[in-house]
Amino acid sequence: MSKSFDFYFDFASPFGFLGSRRVTALAKAIGRDVNWRPFLIGAVYKAHGGLPLDHPLKKDYVFKDFFRRAKLDGIAEVRVPTNFPANPIPPSRLAYWVEREAPEKMGAFVEAAYRAYWIDGKDTSDANVALDVAASLGFDRDAAAAGAQEQDIKDRLRHETENALARGVFGSPFILIDGEPFWGTDRFDDIERLYR
Amino acid sequence: MSKSFDFYFDFASPFGFLGSRRVTALAKAIGRDVNWRPFLIGAVYKAHGGLPLDHPLKKDYVFKDFFRRAKLDGIAEVRVPTNFPANPIPPSRLAYWVEREAPEKMGAFVEAAYRAYWIDGKDTSDANVALDVAASLGFDRDAAAAGAQEQDIKDRLRHETENALARGVFGSPFILIDGEPFWGTDRFDDIERLYR
Repeated sequence: MSKSFDFYFDFASPFGFLGSRRVTALAKAIGRDVNWRPFLIGAVYKAHGGLPLDHPLKKDYVFKDFFRRAKLDGIAEVRVPTNFPANPIPPSRLAYWVEREAPEKMGAFVEAAYRAYWIDGKDTSDANVALDVAASLGFDRDAAAAGAQEQDIKDRLRHETENALARGVFGSPFILIDGEPFWGTDRFDDIERLYR
Repeated sequence: MSKSFDFYFDFASPFGFLGSRRVTALAKAIGRDVNWRPFLIGAVYKAHGGLPLDHPLKKDYVFKDFFRRAKLDGIAEVRVPTNFPANPIPPSRLAYWVEREAPEKMGAFVEAAYRAYWIDGKDTSDANVALDVAASLGFDRDAAAAGAQEQDIKDRLRHETENALARGVFGSPFILIDGEPFWGTDRFDDIERLYR
Protein backbone atom coordinates (compact mmCIF):
# COMPACT_ATOMS: atom_id res chain seq x y z
CA MET A 1 0.00 0.00 0.00
CA SER A 2 1.48 3.29 -1.02
CA LYS A 3 1.78 6.14 1.41
CA SER A 4 -0.86 8.81 1.43
CA PHE A 5 -1.93 12.02 3.13
CA ASP A 6 -5.31 13.37 4.20
CA PHE A 7 -6.72 16.33 2.31
CA TYR A 8 -9.54 17.87 4.36
CA PHE A 9 -11.84 20.35 2.69
CA ASP A 10 -15.35 21.80 2.82
CA PHE A 11 -17.31 21.99 -0.43
CA ALA A 12 -18.27 25.62 0.23
CA SER A 13 -14.66 26.67 0.79
CA PRO A 14 -13.11 28.87 -1.92
CA PHE A 15 -9.57 27.85 -1.02
CA GLY A 16 -10.67 24.23 -0.66
CA PHE A 17 -11.66 24.55 -4.30
CA LEU A 18 -8.30 26.02 -5.30
CA GLY A 19 -6.54 23.34 -3.27
CA SER A 20 -8.51 20.57 -4.98
CA ARG A 21 -7.09 21.74 -8.30
CA ARG A 22 -3.50 21.45 -7.11
CA VAL A 23 -3.53 18.58 -4.64
CA THR A 24 -3.19 15.78 -7.19
CA ALA A 25 -0.04 17.39 -8.59
CA LEU A 26 1.28 17.82 -5.06
CA ALA A 27 0.63 14.15 -4.31
CA LYS A 28 2.42 13.13 -7.47
CA ALA A 29 5.38 15.37 -6.67
CA ILE A 30 5.92 13.68 -3.32
CA GLY A 31 4.96 10.17 -4.43
CA ARG A 32 1.86 9.77 -2.31
CA ASP A 33 -1.87 9.23 -2.74
CA VAL A 34 -4.57 11.72 -1.74
CA ASN A 35 -7.15 10.69 0.83
CA TRP A 36 -9.98 13.03 -0.13
CA ARG A 37 -11.70 13.99 3.10
CA PRO A 38 -14.73 16.26 2.72
CA PHE A 39 -15.90 17.50 6.11
CA LEU A 40 -18.13 20.21 7.52
CA ILE A 41 -16.14 23.28 8.49
CA GLY A 42 -19.23 24.61 10.26
CA ALA A 43 -18.65 21.99 12.96
CA VAL A 44 -15.27 23.59 13.71
CA TYR A 45 -16.81 27.02 14.17
CA LYS A 46 -19.53 25.51 16.33
CA ALA A 47 -16.96 23.74 18.50
CA HIS A 48 -14.39 26.51 18.75
CA GLY A 49 -16.36 29.69 18.22
CA GLY A 50 -15.58 32.26 15.61
CA LEU A 51 -16.61 32.54 12.03
CA PRO A 52 -14.38 32.19 9.01
CA LEU A 53 -15.04 35.59 7.53
CA ASP A 54 -16.13 37.34 10.64
CA HIS A 55 -15.94 40.94 9.61
CA PRO A 56 -16.77 42.56 6.27
CA LEU A 57 -13.22 43.87 5.84
CA LYS A 58 -11.77 40.39 5.93
CA LYS A 59 -14.51 38.90 3.78
CA ASP A 60 -13.93 41.50 1.07
CA TYR A 61 -10.23 40.81 1.18
CA VAL A 62 -10.60 37.04 1.10
CA PHE A 63 -12.66 37.14 -2.08
CA LYS A 64 -10.33 39.64 -3.71
CA ASP A 65 -7.43 37.37 -2.80
CA PHE A 66 -9.36 34.32 -4.01
CA PHE A 67 -9.91 35.78 -7.48
CA ARG A 68 -6.31 36.92 -7.70
CA ARG A 69 -4.99 33.52 -6.63
CA ALA A 70 -7.35 31.67 -8.94
CA LYS A 71 -6.07 33.75 -11.84
CA LEU A 72 -2.44 33.13 -10.86
CA ASP A 73 -3.28 29.41 -10.71
CA GLY A 74 -4.61 29.65 -14.25
CA ILE A 75 -8.30 29.42 -13.34
CA ALA A 76 -9.73 32.57 -14.87
CA GLU A 77 -13.41 31.70 -14.81
CA VAL A 78 -14.28 31.49 -11.10
CA ARG A 79 -17.23 33.36 -9.65
CA VAL A 80 -18.66 33.77 -6.17
CA PRO A 81 -21.81 31.64 -6.05
CA THR A 82 -24.93 33.63 -5.28
CA ASN A 83 -25.73 31.26 -2.42
CA PHE A 84 -22.27 31.36 -0.79
CA PRO A 85 -21.69 29.58 1.54
CA ALA A 86 -23.82 26.71 0.27
CA ASN A 87 -24.68 23.77 2.51
CA PRO A 88 -21.89 21.27 1.83
CA ILE A 89 -23.76 18.21 3.08
CA PRO A 90 -25.25 16.93 -0.22
CA PRO A 91 -21.97 16.80 -2.18
CA SER A 92 -20.07 15.59 0.90
CA ARG A 93 -22.35 12.59 1.42
CA LEU A 94 -22.28 11.79 -2.26
CA ALA A 95 -18.49 11.96 -2.22
CA TYR A 96 -18.30 9.29 0.47
CA TRP A 97 -20.82 7.18 -1.43
CA VAL A 98 -18.67 7.54 -4.56
CA GLU A 99 -15.61 6.54 -2.56
CA ARG A 100 -17.34 3.39 -1.35
CA GLU A 101 -18.66 2.44 -4.77
CA ALA A 102 -15.69 3.41 -6.93
CA PRO A 103 -12.80 4.82 -4.88
CA GLU A 104 -10.79 5.59 -8.01
CA LYS A 105 -13.46 8.16 -8.94
CA MET A 106 -13.39 10.06 -5.64
CA GLY A 107 -10.97 12.73 -6.86
CA ALA A 108 -12.87 13.23 -10.10
CA PHE A 109 -16.12 13.64 -8.17
CA VAL A 110 -14.60 16.24 -5.84
CA GLU A 111 -13.22 18.21 -8.77
CA ALA A 112 -16.52 18.03 -10.65
CA ALA A 113 -18.60 19.09 -7.64
CA TYR A 114 -16.28 22.01 -6.94
CA ARG A 115 -16.37 23.00 -10.60
CA ALA A 116 -20.17 22.96 -10.59
CA TYR A 117 -20.25 25.32 -7.61
CA TRP A 118 -17.29 27.67 -8.14
CA ILE A 119 -17.15 27.83 -11.92
CA ASP A 120 -20.55 26.86 -13.31
CA GLY A 121 -22.50 28.66 -10.59
CA LYS A 122 -24.69 25.67 -9.81
CA ASP A 123 -26.31 25.23 -6.42
CA THR A 124 -24.69 22.02 -5.18
CA SER A 125 -26.54 22.34 -1.87
CA ASP A 126 -29.53 21.15 -3.90
CA ALA A 127 -29.43 17.33 -3.75
CA ASN A 128 -30.55 17.12 -7.38
CA VAL A 129 -27.67 19.29 -8.56
CA ALA A 130 -25.20 17.19 -6.58
CA LEU A 131 -26.71 14.10 -8.21
CA ASP A 132 -26.18 15.67 -11.63
CA VAL A 133 -22.48 15.76 -10.82
CA ALA A 134 -22.44 12.07 -9.92
CA ALA A 135 -24.45 11.22 -13.04
CA SER A 136 -21.98 13.18 -15.19
CA LEU A 137 -19.28 10.77 -14.02
CA GLY A 138 -21.32 7.76 -15.10
CA PHE A 139 -22.95 6.86 -11.81
CA ASP A 140 -26.53 5.66 -11.79
CA ARG A 141 -28.60 8.57 -10.58
CA ASP A 142 -31.12 6.54 -8.57
CA ALA A 143 -28.41 4.47 -6.94
CA ALA A 144 -26.55 7.65 -6.00
CA ALA A 145 -29.71 9.23 -4.61
CA ALA A 146 -30.41 6.19 -2.47
CA GLY A 147 -26.78 5.90 -1.42
CA ALA A 148 -26.59 9.48 -0.19
CA GLN A 149 -29.53 8.77 2.09
CA GLU A 150 -28.09 5.60 3.63
CA GLN A 151 -27.46 5.83 7.34
CA ASP A 152 -23.95 4.43 6.83
CA ILE A 153 -23.10 7.29 4.49
CA LYS A 154 -24.60 9.91 6.78
CA ASP A 155 -22.65 8.41 9.67
CA ARG A 156 -19.49 8.40 7.62
CA LEU A 157 -19.62 12.15 7.02
CA ARG A 158 -20.42 12.78 10.67
CA HIS A 159 -17.56 10.53 11.73
CA GLU A 160 -15.07 12.14 9.35
CA THR A 161 -16.06 15.59 10.59
CA GLU A 162 -15.69 14.56 14.24
CA ASN A 163 -12.40 12.90 13.43
CA ALA A 164 -11.16 16.03 11.66
CA LEU A 165 -11.92 18.09 14.78
CA ALA A 166 -10.28 15.51 17.03
CA ARG A 167 -7.15 15.66 14.86
CA GLY A 168 -6.92 19.44 15.11
CA VAL A 169 -8.27 20.41 11.71
CA PHE A 170 -9.69 23.94 11.93
CA GLY A 171 -9.69 25.25 8.37
CA SER A 172 -10.22 24.34 4.73
CA PRO A 173 -8.22 23.08 3.03
CA PHE A 174 -6.12 21.31 5.63
CA ILE A 175 -3.58 18.57 5.03
CA LEU A 176 -2.39 16.03 7.58
CA ILE A 177 0.69 14.17 6.45
CA ASP A 178 2.51 11.77 8.77
CA GLY A 179 0.64 13.49 11.59
CA GLU A 180 1.89 16.97 10.64
CA PRO A 181 -0.74 19.68 10.05
CA PHE A 182 -0.66 22.15 7.15
CA TRP A 183 -3.39 24.75 6.83
CA GLY A 184 -4.22 26.25 3.46
CA THR A 185 -3.05 26.09 -0.11
CA ASP A 186 -0.29 28.45 1.02
CA ARG A 187 1.53 25.48 2.53
CA PHE A 188 1.49 23.19 -0.52
CA ASP A 189 4.98 24.36 -1.49
CA ASP A 190 6.24 23.70 2.03
CA ILE A 191 4.83 20.16 1.92
CA GLU A 192 6.58 19.60 -1.36
CA ARG A 193 9.88 20.87 0.05
CA LEU A 194 9.57 18.79 3.21
CA TYR A 195 8.24 15.49 1.85
CA ARG A 196 9.65 15.17 -1.62
CA MET B 1 11.32 59.62 -6.34
CA SER B 2 11.25 55.88 -6.82
CA LYS B 3 8.07 53.89 -6.39
CA SER B 4 7.43 52.18 -3.10
CA PHE B 5 4.93 50.02 -1.23
CA ASP B 6 3.70 50.02 2.35
CA PHE B 7 4.76 47.17 4.61
CA TYR B 8 2.50 47.15 7.68
CA PHE B 9 3.51 45.04 10.67
CA ASP B 10 3.15 44.74 14.42
CA PHE B 11 6.31 44.19 16.45
CA ALA B 12 4.71 41.31 18.38
CA SER B 13 3.69 39.49 15.20
CA PRO B 14 5.59 36.28 14.42
CA PHE B 15 4.84 36.48 10.72
CA GLY B 16 5.57 40.20 10.74
CA PHE B 17 9.03 39.16 11.90
CA LEU B 18 9.39 36.58 9.12
CA GLY B 19 8.12 39.12 6.61
CA SER B 20 10.63 41.71 7.77
CA ARG B 21 13.42 39.30 6.86
CA ARG B 22 12.18 38.91 3.28
CA VAL B 23 10.61 42.24 2.42
CA THR B 24 13.83 43.97 1.38
CA ALA B 25 14.56 41.23 -1.14
CA LEU B 26 10.99 41.48 -2.40
CA ALA B 27 11.33 45.23 -2.83
CA LYS B 28 14.58 44.76 -4.73
CA ALA B 29 13.02 42.11 -6.98
CA ILE B 30 10.25 44.46 -8.07
CA GLY B 31 12.35 47.61 -8.11
CA ARG B 32 10.59 49.48 -5.32
CA ASP B 33 11.36 50.88 -1.88
CA VAL B 34 9.83 49.65 1.37
CA ASN B 35 7.79 52.05 3.47
CA TRP B 36 8.18 50.42 6.90
CA ARG B 37 4.90 50.95 8.69
CA PRO B 38 4.78 49.60 12.24
CA PHE B 39 1.24 49.76 13.61
CA LEU B 40 -0.76 48.31 16.47
CA ILE B 41 -2.67 45.22 15.39
CA GLY B 42 -4.57 45.36 18.68
CA ALA B 43 -6.45 48.36 17.29
CA VAL B 44 -7.80 46.16 14.50
CA TYR B 45 -9.13 43.58 16.92
CA LYS B 46 -10.61 46.35 19.02
CA ALA B 47 -12.33 47.86 15.99
CA HIS B 48 -13.50 44.69 14.30
CA GLY B 49 -13.79 42.19 17.12
CA GLY B 50 -12.04 38.88 17.21
CA LEU B 51 -8.62 37.90 18.37
CA PRO B 52 -5.77 36.73 16.20
CA LEU B 53 -5.24 33.37 17.88
CA ASP B 54 -8.66 32.96 19.36
CA HIS B 55 -8.71 29.30 20.19
CA PRO B 56 -5.94 27.10 21.56
CA LEU B 57 -6.07 24.79 18.55
CA LYS B 58 -5.24 27.59 16.17
CA LYS B 59 -2.64 29.12 18.45
CA ASP B 60 -0.80 25.79 18.71
CA TYR B 61 -0.90 25.42 14.96
CA VAL B 62 0.26 28.94 14.24
CA PHE B 63 3.39 28.54 16.35
CA LYS B 64 4.14 25.12 14.88
CA ASP B 65 3.74 26.65 11.43
CA PHE B 66 5.86 29.64 12.45
CA PHE B 67 8.80 27.46 13.50
CA ARG B 68 8.51 25.35 10.37
CA ARG B 69 8.37 28.41 8.12
CA ALA B 70 11.22 30.11 9.94
CA LYS B 71 13.37 27.02 9.41
CA LEU B 72 12.40 26.85 5.72
CA ASP B 73 13.35 30.53 5.45
CA GLY B 74 16.75 29.69 6.91
CA ILE B 75 16.12 31.18 10.35
CA ALA B 76 16.77 28.25 12.66
CA GLU B 77 17.13 30.07 15.93
CA VAL B 78 13.69 31.59 16.59
CA ARG B 79 11.91 31.11 19.90
CA VAL B 80 8.55 32.12 21.28
CA PRO B 81 9.19 34.99 23.69
CA THR B 82 8.05 34.27 27.22
CA ASN B 83 6.02 37.48 27.20
CA PHE B 84 4.26 36.89 23.86
CA PRO B 85 2.50 39.02 22.75
CA ALA B 86 4.64 41.88 24.01
CA ASN B 87 3.36 45.44 23.92
CA PRO B 88 4.60 46.76 20.56
CA ILE B 89 4.34 50.44 21.45
CA PRO B 90 7.95 51.11 22.62
CA PRO B 91 9.70 49.74 19.52
CA SER B 92 6.98 51.19 17.23
CA ARG B 93 7.44 54.72 18.55
CA LEU B 94 11.20 54.40 18.38
CA ALA B 95 10.92 53.19 14.80
CA TYR B 96 9.09 56.35 13.76
CA TRP B 97 11.63 58.45 15.64
CA VAL B 98 14.42 56.62 13.78
CA GLU B 99 12.64 57.26 10.51
CA ARG B 100 12.45 60.96 11.25
CA GLU B 101 16.07 61.23 12.36
CA ALA B 102 17.71 58.90 9.85
CA PRO B 103 15.22 57.40 7.40
CA GLU B 104 17.88 55.22 5.80
CA LYS B 105 18.18 53.35 9.13
CA MET B 106 14.46 52.52 9.49
CA GLY B 107 14.77 49.04 7.96
CA ALA B 108 17.82 48.21 10.04
CA PHE B 109 16.03 49.29 13.20
CA VAL B 110 12.99 47.15 12.41
CA GLU B 111 15.16 44.13 11.74
CA ALA B 112 17.19 44.67 14.91
CA ALA B 113 14.11 45.15 17.11
CA TYR B 114 12.50 42.02 15.68
CA ARG B 115 15.72 40.08 16.18
CA ALA B 116 15.92 41.19 19.81
CA TYR B 117 12.41 39.91 20.45
CA TRP B 118 12.10 36.78 18.30
CA ILE B 119 15.66 35.49 18.34
CA ASP B 120 17.44 36.93 21.37
CA GLY B 121 14.42 36.61 23.65
CA LYS B 122 14.64 40.20 24.87
CA ASP B 123 11.60 42.03 26.18
CA THR B 124 11.23 44.85 23.70
CA SER B 125 8.08 46.03 25.44
CA ASP B 126 10.50 47.39 28.03
CA ALA B 127 11.43 50.90 26.86
CA ASN B 128 15.02 50.38 27.99
CA VAL B 129 15.40 47.24 25.89
CA ALA B 130 13.95 49.03 22.87
CA LEU B 131 16.47 51.82 23.48
CA ASP B 132 19.29 49.25 23.54
CA VAL B 133 18.29 48.37 20.00
CA ALA B 134 18.48 52.00 18.88
CA ALA B 135 21.81 52.43 20.65
CA SER B 136 23.18 49.34 18.92
CA LEU B 137 22.61 51.12 15.61
CA GLY B 138 24.60 54.15 16.75
CA PHE B 139 21.78 56.39 17.95
CA ASP B 140 22.29 58.49 21.04
CA ARG B 141 20.42 56.75 23.80
CA ASP B 142 19.20 59.89 25.58
CA ALA B 143 18.07 61.50 22.34
CA ALA B 144 16.18 58.32 21.43
CA ALA B 145 14.56 58.15 24.87
CA ALA B 146 13.41 61.75 24.61
CA GLY B 147 12.29 61.29 21.01
CA ALA B 148 10.09 58.31 21.79
CA GLN B 149 8.26 60.44 24.34
CA GLU B 150 7.61 63.38 22.00
CA GLN B 151 3.96 64.06 21.35
CA ASP B 152 4.67 64.19 17.60
CA ILE B 153 6.05 60.67 17.66
CA LYS B 154 3.20 59.34 19.78
CA ASP B 155 0.76 60.99 17.40
CA ARG B 156 2.57 59.54 14.43
CA LEU B 157 2.08 55.96 15.64
CA ARG B 158 -1.55 56.64 16.46
CA HIS B 159 -2.07 58.22 13.04
CA GLU B 160 -0.37 55.36 11.19
CA THR B 161 -2.50 52.84 13.07
CA GLU B 162 -5.71 54.72 12.32
CA ASN B 163 -4.65 55.08 8.72
CA ALA B 164 -3.92 51.36 8.47
CA LEU B 165 -7.43 50.58 9.67
CA ALA B 166 -8.94 53.12 7.31
CA ARG B 167 -7.06 51.49 4.44
CA GLY B 168 -8.40 48.03 5.28
CA VAL B 169 -5.33 46.55 6.95
CA PHE B 170 -6.47 43.77 9.30
CA GLY B 171 -3.41 41.54 9.79
CA SER B 172 0.35 41.52 10.15
CA PRO B 173 2.24 41.61 7.92
CA PHE B 174 0.13 43.39 5.34
CA ILE B 175 1.34 45.02 2.14
CA LEU B 176 -0.44 47.75 0.21
CA ILE B 177 1.02 48.27 -3.24
CA ASP B 178 -0.63 50.62 -5.74
CA GLY B 179 -3.71 50.35 -3.53
CA GLU B 180 -3.85 46.55 -3.72
CA PRO B 181 -3.91 44.63 -0.42
CA PHE B 182 -1.84 41.53 0.29
CA TRP B 183 -2.11 39.82 3.66
CA GLY B 184 0.71 37.71 4.99
CA THR B 185 4.12 36.51 3.94
CA ASP B 186 2.23 33.90 1.92
CA ARG B 187 1.55 36.53 -0.71
CA PHE B 188 5.10 37.78 -1.24
CA ASP B 189 5.52 35.45 -4.20
CA ASP B 190 2.28 36.71 -5.72
CA ILE B 191 3.44 40.31 -5.37
CA GLU B 192 6.67 39.41 -7.11
CA ARG B 193 4.79 37.72 -9.96
CA LEU B 194 2.35 40.61 -10.35
CA TYR B 195 4.66 43.62 -9.96
CA ARG B 196 8.00 42.52 -11.30
